[in-house]
Amino acid sequence: MNNFQYKNPTKILFGKGEIANLSKEIPQNAKVLLLYGGGSIKKNGIYEQVTAALDGVEVVPFGGIPANPEYEVLMEALGVIKSQEIDFLLAVGGGSVIDGTKFLAAAALYEGDTPWELLTAGKPVAKGMPFGAVLTLPATGSEMNSNSVITRKETQEKLAMSGAGIFPVFSVLDPQVIRSIPERQLANGIADAFTHVLEQYMTYPIGALLQDRMAESVLQTLLEVAPAILKDPTDYQAASNFMWSCTMALNGLLPLGVPTDWAVHAMGHELTAMYGIDHARTLAIMAPSHYRFNFETKKEKLAQFAERVWGITQGNVDEKAHAAIDKTEAFFHELGIATKLSQYTDDFQGTAETIEKRFTDRGWLGLGEHQSLKPSDVAQIVTMAY
Amino acid sequence: MNNFQYKNPTKILFGKGEIANLSKEIPQNAKVLLLYGGGSIKKNGIYEQVTAALDGVEVVPFGGIPANPEYEVLMEALGVIKSQEIDFLLAVGGGSVIDGTKFLAAAALYEGDTPWELLTAGKPVAKGMPFGAVLTLPATGSEMNSNSVITRKETQEKLAMSGAGIFPVFSVLDPQVIRSIPERQLANGIADAFTHVLEQYMTYPIGALLQDRMAESVLQTLLEVAPAILKDPTDYQAASNFMWSCTMALNGLLPLGVPTDWAVHAMGHELTAMYGIDHARTLAIMAPSHYRFNFETKKEKLAQFAERVWGITQGNVDEKAHAAIDKTEAFFHELGIATKLSQYTDDFQGTAETIEKRFTDRGWLGLGEHQSLKPSDVAQIVTMAY
Repeated sequence: MNNFQYKNPTKILFGKGEIANLSKEIPQNAKVLLLYGGGSIKKNGIYEQVTAALDGVEVVPFGGIPANPEYEVLMEALGVIKSQEIDFLLAVGGGSVIDGTKFLAAAALYEGDTPWELLTAGKPVAKGMPFGAVLTLPATGSEMNSNSVITRKETQEKLAMSGAGIFPVFSVLDPQVIRSIPERQLANGIADAFTHVLEQYMTYPIGALLQDRMAESVLQTLLEVAPAILKDPTDYQAASNFMWSCTMALNGLLPLGVPTDWAVHAMGHELTAMYGIDHARTLAIMAPSHYRFNFETKKEKLAQFAERVWGITQGNVDEKAHAAIDKTEAFFHELGIATKLSQYTDDFQGTAETIEKRFTDRGWLGLGEHQSLKPSDVAQIVTMAY
Repeated sequence: MNNFQYKNPTKILFGKGEIANLSKEIPQNAKVLLLYGGGSIKKNGIYEQVTAALDGVEVVPFGGIPANPEYEVLMEALGVIKSQEIDFLLAVGGGSVIDGTKFLAAAALYEGDTPWELLTAGKPVAKGMPFGAVLTLPATGSEMNSNSVITRKETQEKLAMSGAGIFPVFSVLDPQVIRSIPERQLANGIADAFTHVLEQYMTYPIGALLQDRMAESVLQTLLEVAPAILKDPTDYQAASNFMWSCTMALNGLLPLGVPTDWAVHAMGHELTAMYGIDHARTLAIMAPSHYRFNFETKKEKLAQFAERVWGITQGNVDEKAHAAIDKTEAFFHELGIATKLSQYTDDFQGTAETIEKRFTDRGWLGLGEHQSLKPSDVAQIVTMAY
C-alpha cells in the first residue's frame, strides 16, 4: 500500500424527504445562486421542493447549464455572482450542474487573468466560495468530491480540475429523485459509477486489501441493483443503494494508497468533445478495448475481479481475466449501452489519429497506472473500439 | 435503508514516515500539549520521532494517561491546559490517549459545573478545542471519529460521549508503529476492530446492501491479515491493512442508514470497570453469548455473515448462523483471547446481578438494535458468558 492523505469534509444528508432540511445548511442571510440545468427539475417537482425548503432565503435562479458544463454559459453565471453579490451557490442537478458550480466557486475567487487557467494550470484549487448541492441524478460522485470537468465548445476541449477548495459544504441525496429519471440516464449513471470504480481498481495488485474489497463491494452492489433500477425506478431500496454506491464510487476512499488508471476517462472525454456522445457511453466504448490492449499488465486484477465480482472460478488467470472483460462488456449491453464507436457515429474514421494528435499536442505522454501509454498506444486502443 | 447524515472532517496522513509531516498540520505559533500514556513511546522511538517533527514548536509534555482513560488524571491535564494557556492538543498513543484528549478538548471549552456532565448528559458535544493524533496502537478507531469513552475509578463507571466538536483535526497513521506493539495488544486490537464491525452489522437486514458489503470487507480483511500480524508485526503489508481496517471499522461509514447494536460494548464496559479486563477481551467474552441469546432476531444477518465472510455454504439459515458464531468464537481463541469470564477471574459469581442493577439504576431499559433487551436479559447474557 502506498502512503496517502485523505480528507473529505462534505456533509451528506441522505434519504427520503431530506430536501426539506436544506435551509438549515445554508448560512444565515446568505444570498443564494440556485444553479440548474435544462429545466427537468421544474417538471419533476424538485424545483418546487427546493424553493419551498428555501422559503425566506433570498434566491437568484440561474438555469440552462448544459450536460458537459459549458465554459461560456458558466462565464455568464460568474457575471451574475459578481453583479448580484452572491454569497452561496446551490447546485440542483446532476454531475454537470455540480461540476459547473465547482468551477464557479473557484472562478469567483480566482485572481489570475482568466478562470480558464484553473483548468489548464493543473494546480490543485485551494480556495472556492461555499456551495452545496441537491443531487438529482446519481452517477458522477461529484456531490462528495472535489473534482470538476468543464467543456469548452469553441476549442472542443474537456478538461478537469480539483482541489480542497471545491468540496461541497453539503449535499442532499434523496433517492426518490430517481423516479423521474429517464431510463437512458439511469443506465448511464450505472455505467458511469461502475467505470469510476474500475479506473481505481483495475490496475495491478499493491496489497491494499481493504481498498480492493471496498471497490468490489461497490461493483457488486451496482450489479445487484442495476436490473431493479431499470425495471422500476420507484423501488426505493434499489434506488437508495444505487445512489449511495455512485457517491462511494468516487468520494476518494477507493484510490487511497493504490495506483489508479483514468485512461478510460481521458479517452472517453475526447469522444464526448468530438461527437457529443454521453459521457458514460464513451466509458463503455473505451473500457473493454483498454483492458484488452493492456491485458498483460492488468490481468492479475482482472482475474481477481472475475473471481470476486463475477463469481468465475474456472480457468487460469488469463482465462478468468478475459472472461471478466467479456462479462463487463455484456453488462454494458444489458444496460442498453453499445460498446463500439461505430454504433454511435458513421464518421468514426480518423478518430484515433485526431485523439493521438491532441494528446501529443497537450504533452500527455504517459497515460495509465504505469504512465506508459503513449499517444500512439491510445490511437491503437481507440481503433480497437471502432 | 434508513435516512442518515454523515460528515467526517478528520484529515488522515497514512503511511511510513508520515510522522515527519506533523508540524505542517499544527497551527502556527500554537502552544501544544503533548499527551501520552505509560511511556512506551519513549522506548520505541515514537516520542523521539514526534518531538523531532515538532522542532521549533512550543511543546508541553503530559504523560501517564492510563488505559481506560481515567477522569482524575484527565482533570490534572485540564489544569495544565488552563494554567499554561495551551492552544492545541496532540495525542500520541492508542485509543485511550486519544479518547482522553477528546474529553479534554471538550472539557476545556465546557461552561457547566463539572466536565463529568459531558459524559452523563447524553448530549452531542458541539464544541472542543482543536487537537490532532499520532496513532500508536490500531484498534479503537478513535483517530477518525468523534467518540470518547472515559472511566471514573471512584465510581467504577465507564461512560461515552460523542459529537461534531471532538473530531481530530488530523491523525497520523504510520503502520510501522506496529513493530513494537506486544502480541497481546495486537490481538486485542484485532478483536476490538472486528467487534466494532459486528456491532454495526450483526442486527437485521434493512436493505443497505453497500454498507453490508463494506462491513464484510473490513471483517474479511481483518481475518486475512490477523495471522500475518501476530506472526510478524514488521510485515508492512499486513500492518498497513490492519491499521486502515481498524480506522474504517469505526469512522462512521458502516452504520449509515442501518440499525446498530452496541450491547456487547455496553456489557463489556462493565467487565472492564469491575475487573480491569482489557476492553477487547470483554468484547470477546460478551459477543458469542450475546449472539446466542439473541439468535432469533439476528439469525438472518448471522447466516449472511457465515456465507460471505466465513465461506459457509452448507446448511439452512439456523445452521449457518450457529456456525458463524462458533467460527467467531474460535477466531478469538486463535488470537489467544479467552471467551469466558471465569477464565479471567475466580470472583465472577454475582457479576450478572451487579450489571443488572447498574443498568436498572441508570435507566438503560432497552439495549440492542430493537431496544428490547432489559436489564434482566442482560443478566442472562452475562451469566451465559461465565
